[in-house]
Amino acid sequence: MRFSEFFIKTLRQYPETGSANAQLLNRAGFISQSSSGVYTLLPLALRTISKIERIIDEQMTALGASRILMPALQPLSLWQKTGRDKTLKTVLYLDEQKKDVFAPTHEELLTELLSKVISSYRDLPVLLYQIQTKYRRELRAKSGLLRSREFIMKDLYSFHPDNKSFHSFYEKASQSYFKIFEKLGLEVYRVKAGGGGFTEEFSDEFQVLCEAGEDEIFYNPKTKTGYNKEVEKSIPRNEKKSLRRARAIELGNIFPLGTKFAEDLNLTYLSLNGTREHPVMGSYGIGITRALAALAEIYHDSNGLIWPSQVAPFEIYFIDLTHSGEGERVYKQLNKDWEVLFDDREESPGVKFAEADLIGLPLRIVYSAKLSQEGKIELKGRQSDRPRLVNIDELDSAVAKFFKGVGASG
Amino acid sequence: MRFSEFFIKTLRQYPETGSANAQLLNRAGFISQSSSGVYTLLPLALRTISKIERIIDEQMTALGASRILMPALQPLSLWQKTGRDKTLKTVLYLDEQKKDVFAPTHEELLTELLSKVISSYRDLPVLLYQIQTKYRRELRAKSGLLRSREFIMKDLYSFHPDNKSFHSFYEKASQSYFKIFEKLGLEVYRVKAGGGGFTEEFSDEFQVLCEAGEDEIFYNPKTKTGYNKEVEKSIPRNEKKSLRRARAIELGNIFPLGTKFAEDLNLTYLSLNGTREHPVMGSYGIGITRALAALAEIYHDSNGLIWPSQVAPFEIYFIDLTHSGEGERVYKQLNKDWEVLFDDREESPGVKFAEADLIGLPLRIVYSAKLSQEGKIELKGRQSDRPRLVNIDELDSAVAKFFKGVGASG
Repeated sequence: MRFSEFFIKTLRQYPETGSANAQLLNRAGFISQSSSGVYTLLPLALRTISKIERIIDEQMTALGASRILMPALQPLSLWQKTGRDKTLKTVLYLDEQKKDVFAPTHEELLTELLSKVISSYRDLPVLLYQIQTKYRRELRAKSGLLRSREFIMKDLYSFHPDNKSFHSFYEKASQSYFKIFEKLGLEVYRVKAGGGGFTEEFSDEFQVLCEAGEDEIFYNPKTKTGYNKEVEKSIPRNEKKSLRRARAIELGNIFPLGTKFAEDLNLTYLSLNGTREHPVMGSYGIGITRALAALAEIYHDSNGLIWPSQVAPFEIYFIDLTHSGEGERVYKQLNKDWEVLFDDREESPGVKFAEADLIGLPLRIVYSAKLSQEGKIELKGRQSDRPRLVNIDELDSAVAKFFKGVGASG
Repeated sequence: MRFSEFFIKTLRQYPETGSANAQLLNRAGFISQSSSGVYTLLPLALRTISKIERIIDEQMTALGASRILMPALQPLSLWQKTGRDKTLKTVLYLDEQKKDVFAPTHEELLTELLSKVISSYRDLPVLLYQIQTKYRRELRAKSGLLRSREFIMKDLYSFHPDNKSFHSFYEKASQSYFKIFEKLGLEVYRVKAGGGGFTEEFSDEFQVLCEAGEDEIFYNPKTKTGYNKEVEKSIPRNEKKSLRRARAIELGNIFPLGTKFAEDLNLTYLSLNGTREHPVMGSYGIGITRALAALAEIYHDSNGLIWPSQVAPFEIYFIDLTHSGEGERVYKQLNKDWEVLFDDREESPGVKFAEADLIGLPLRIVYSAKLSQEGKIELKGRQSDRPRLVNIDELDSAVAKFFKGVGASG
């Protein structure tokens, strides 16, 4: 992709207040804030988001889940049936006539939907997920995309004939979450937490260590498990000494919901024994825009962002200082096998180098008149201090080797 | 995809009231209504939607537009600056505190965004689009997905240094729209219409003929152009006699917006002459969920839906009556090159045949013990009356030939 044909507007000046993710993503032209806690995703961010979504889609398909898309607009009367019009009152967006909710989650809507189409044990389990925009009233949205009023989530819901089937899937889903976050380059801990208005049982959260996080966790680096501070009192005494304490970002959560929603919304199925039963339910969320923010919080330095290659908006930042047909040829060659952002603007080399660092693609490639005369081209990893020269006719294999070497964490 | 691993719940009974698209899509398990004018897109519908989106994405990229994602949640104060808090008042969703709008369109938000990042004529033109969920208060939502309160749109916005650049792009965008609808299997007319609260100039609508449509148009079958009834009085007298009258569905619209939004929201650029100017703007919409509904309205018979192959959720409905390893082998072979829905349920042949017709995939393939003994397999196009037998070892080429033959309109 040519820079001149793509929409990137980096900002030279940006107020150095607020969260690191909002500052970095704004400066590097990934997002633009339109009001408190509300952001536009610009083309660079949308490319990263679509890569995050693809990784999640693959794992959801592997779990056997089908993808749907539920509406945000839901009757308030539906929420009154489960009492969550009250328990989630402070975060719920209502329309001015107080008839509709712009929903932060979809347990009610899906349970009611299924009550129309599920009849027997043969219809279970049901595994459905969506990637969808959610709304949550936040009075003090101050953590950038870590906590916004409009955000993208993946939410999966499962319905089972009994507790055994539910628990087996709950563990499978948890393993799937570890895989997803590993592929995103985010090392997570599975920590016990409260029910957050969803359930009275414990839930499980997937937390990545980060100073900017709003949570505090006790974690065991070996087992990758731990406890949210909110349930500190339930930590067994003999476990306590192997735990460390740190701030963290909650990227995912999984909730055992039992039969609460099925009971409140009258979802039943005919069992093998001919009795009417309520399915056992779980819900499983991942904050997608929040994952984008966490990547920015964790992967950056004083010059800008540093994207892990599998979620970078492009793989290569190509700077051609020759402004020749030869530079074009190198771009076209690279573009065959890689996602290349070609900085073809009329700007100084200094501006382009700074931009490359700020946007933070994994590999920068520079071609100059001098290098061209020597038959060379320059490669530099975003995290490496020193550029490296390779023969121009070995460019393909050098690039392939670079991306083979960087692995999942950039 | 195996039916047993995919979420499809067709309904044997569904009230025969309301619009054809809602009835058909509900019965065939594509959508589920959750409240008046609000629907969940189930897995079959989401597959068709993603194909529609891919066709649109390709054409937007060909136009040189970059994809972004803007928020629905917007400050009411922003809408007060353009006066559309009043002109669109009846359809605008406000939150209960009357601070935020859940937006039906994005001219305000994008113009304000650009005012932060655009400075000179070298930044123009700007071509940005999104595929995003919109909200529109409809008191009497009665046309299914043709007019819903929450819907998916593609909206493109263009900003130009002058009228000449704008008009040239406006015509390019119009040609792009004809291409998109042709690829979707929808034959459209470009008709002159009023500004609909967006502009005082004429706008252009892309209408497909359909009795269920809410619009009435005068159209010329040869030139593919015409007039919306609302501007009937502006039709030149000599043109009138070559026009026919029909009901139609508005699938797309393009608006010349001049400098209204740039003026109201203070978007300027520094021209070559060193003066501050307002860019000339256009906006270009396509109703994506509405296109799904239009396809259902236009392509169906008394047995169910009839999908054009390029937007069918799957290409082949495979019924194996042998329940043998051989049937599995045929499925796997088909699945290599085609999108196959394998009805592997324990249901009677009659149920499966009815389901195949209701869901409406382009090609039905049936394998039975009798056919297997003869070395044959049965193919039937959804729109064909008579099944056709082919030798099992010629299956691949017969399927390829079928899909080569059906073309863009199924």
